[in-house]
Amino acid sequence: MQTKDEDFEIHLKLAKKFRSFHTIGNFFVIPNAWDVPSARIFEEVGFQCVATSSAGMLISLGYPDGESIPVNEFMNTVSKIARVLSVPLSVDLISGFGNSDEEVVNSVRKVVEAGAVGINIEDMDHARGQLFEVERQVDKIRAIKALSEEMGIPFVVNARTDAVSHRGSMDFNKSLEIAIERSERYIQAGADSVYPMGVFGYDSISHFVKSVKFPVNLMIRKGLPEIKVLRQLGVTRLSFGPAASYSAMGLLWRIGKDIIERDSLNRLFEGAIDFDMLNSLATKRK
Amino acid sequence: MQTKDEDFEIHLKLAKKFRSFHTIGNFFVIPNAWDVPSARIFEEVGFQCVATSSAGMLISLGYPDGESIPVNEFMNTVSKIARVLSVPLSVDLISGFGNSDEEVVNSVRKVVEAGAVGINIEDMDHARGQLFEVERQVDKIRAIKALSEEMGIPFVVNARTDAVSHRGSMDFNKSLEIAIERSERYIQAGADSVYPMGVFGYDSISHFVKSVKFPVNLMIRKGLPEIKVLRQLGVTRLSFGPAASYSAMGLLWRIGKDIIERDSLNRLFEGAIDFDMLNSLATKRK
Repeated sequence: MQTKDEDFEIHLKLAKKFRSFHTIGNFFVIPNAWDVPSARIFEEVGFQCVATSSAGMLISLGYPDGESIPVNEFMNTVSKIARVLSVPLSVDLISGFGNSDEEVVNSVRKVVEAGAVGINIEDMDHARGQLFEVERQVDKIRAIKALSEEMGIPFVVNARTDAVSHRGSMDFNKSLEIAIERSERYIQAGADSVYPMGVFGYDSISHFVKSVKFPVNLMIRKGLPEIKVLRQLGVTRLSFGPAASYSAMGLLWRIGKDIIERDSLNRLFEGAIDFDMLNSLATKRK
Repeated sequence: MQTKDEDFEIHLKLAKKFRSFHTIGNFFVIPNAWDVPSARIFEEVGFQCVATSSAGMLISLGYPDGESIPVNEFMNTVSKIARVLSVPLSVDLISGFGNSDEEVVNSVRKVVEAGAVGINIEDMDHARGQLFEVERQVDKIRAIKALSEEMGIPFVVNARTDAVSHRGSMDFNKSLEIAIERSERYIQAGADSVYPMGVFGYDSISHFVKSVKFPVNLMIRKGLPEIKVLRQLGVTRLSFGPAASYSAMGLLWRIGKDIIERDSLNRLFEGAIDFDMLNSLATKRK
């Protein structure tokens, strides 16, 4: 049994470790899990940190993507995942489950208390279907950084902007400039990395990275340059987003097709783990 | 919005449909899911019914296999899965979450009220690590069948026996005879199908099916004959068990290896579904 002080030291160490990954010149991939075993298997295979996918986790629990999940259920699932991991855990907190800075800070406090050492925070107001005013988002990030000071845990704040992905009829290049401006403001407010959605072409990534001169996180999606190119472009962090869920569900679809159309179980067995391995994923790595 | 009567009619229809699959001469595969989207994708691809995997579901929620999960959390997850399915749902109820027949019947009532139209009930006493006395299990099955009468929902009772899989140092053939004897008693008590664990060789399947002359459920595992052979042998129902979890976790492992060792994202994209498809799996089929 660990004492409270020992727990704090472990938490602090994980936070510092995760923070150290967010450095210009470094590159790392962070896989996003949807539940306990998907998080644990990523640790098991050798990833140095793990994140939650909000879409993956919410849909696994029966809620469409967004902030449709009761906050307690969200936190409960985060706790379960944090409990089994020995590597740093980052949590995609969507827009922070709150209308005020105070409520958002309270959500961040809960995920950090649950054991997370990083969060994603969006500038998308899901209730209104548009971006928060930049000042409002800056205040939010400042409040979150103040919490980090207060808790004494230097958790990573990954500031996401949807300026490009939610540009509507706006010109792409104009939205890219807005994403850069917003990112610069979030960096000034204390963010540890910036996470532009909808930026996935070679030229726009290059422009974005050169402009912000700060650790940039991208999300894996079709059309994104290969990893070796992203390294060359100076990207720091590459997130799965919900890609592992897309992939696992695609596999179940193909397994089903093979059985229904061809009476074949081959794909179901291909590369599968065994019971003992699965069962070990419910608990911390030995 | 459906009325209570309409809900009952739908439930009744699903129960009758699922029951009709359990007939000598019929063969069907029932995939076991671990969460909401894994259940929905199996429906989407064309399976006529879906089940929960107890190991898959428990481990997904952070509990090792067994009855380590709080019963309310188990029921809550079953409800979520039942809510999104339009095909019959069978629930692996392990040993029924109870020490008395009354408690077990209460668990069955909860899963049926949640929308399930079938249950698996084991003769394994997890607390003691040995089989329940056969008379005790027979009483339990009778009590469950009485509940079916009382509720007016003819849900399917799939009686599992671990006589072979937990035979310890006992001779295999002797344990197979015990599994047959137990299965016959469960059939007399009203079970709709029997589910022997550890019976997967051609000869033992053949002997078992010929002996019980009743719908037999087998679990998919390595070493099991191919589906076309199982059809010829007269097996009625083939369950995934936790195989979909083994398979999905194996895929995440290989995706991780490819990224870590080869900077390759190809496997992550291979056969993946998209966001809209994933998101649609959180709700009922349109």
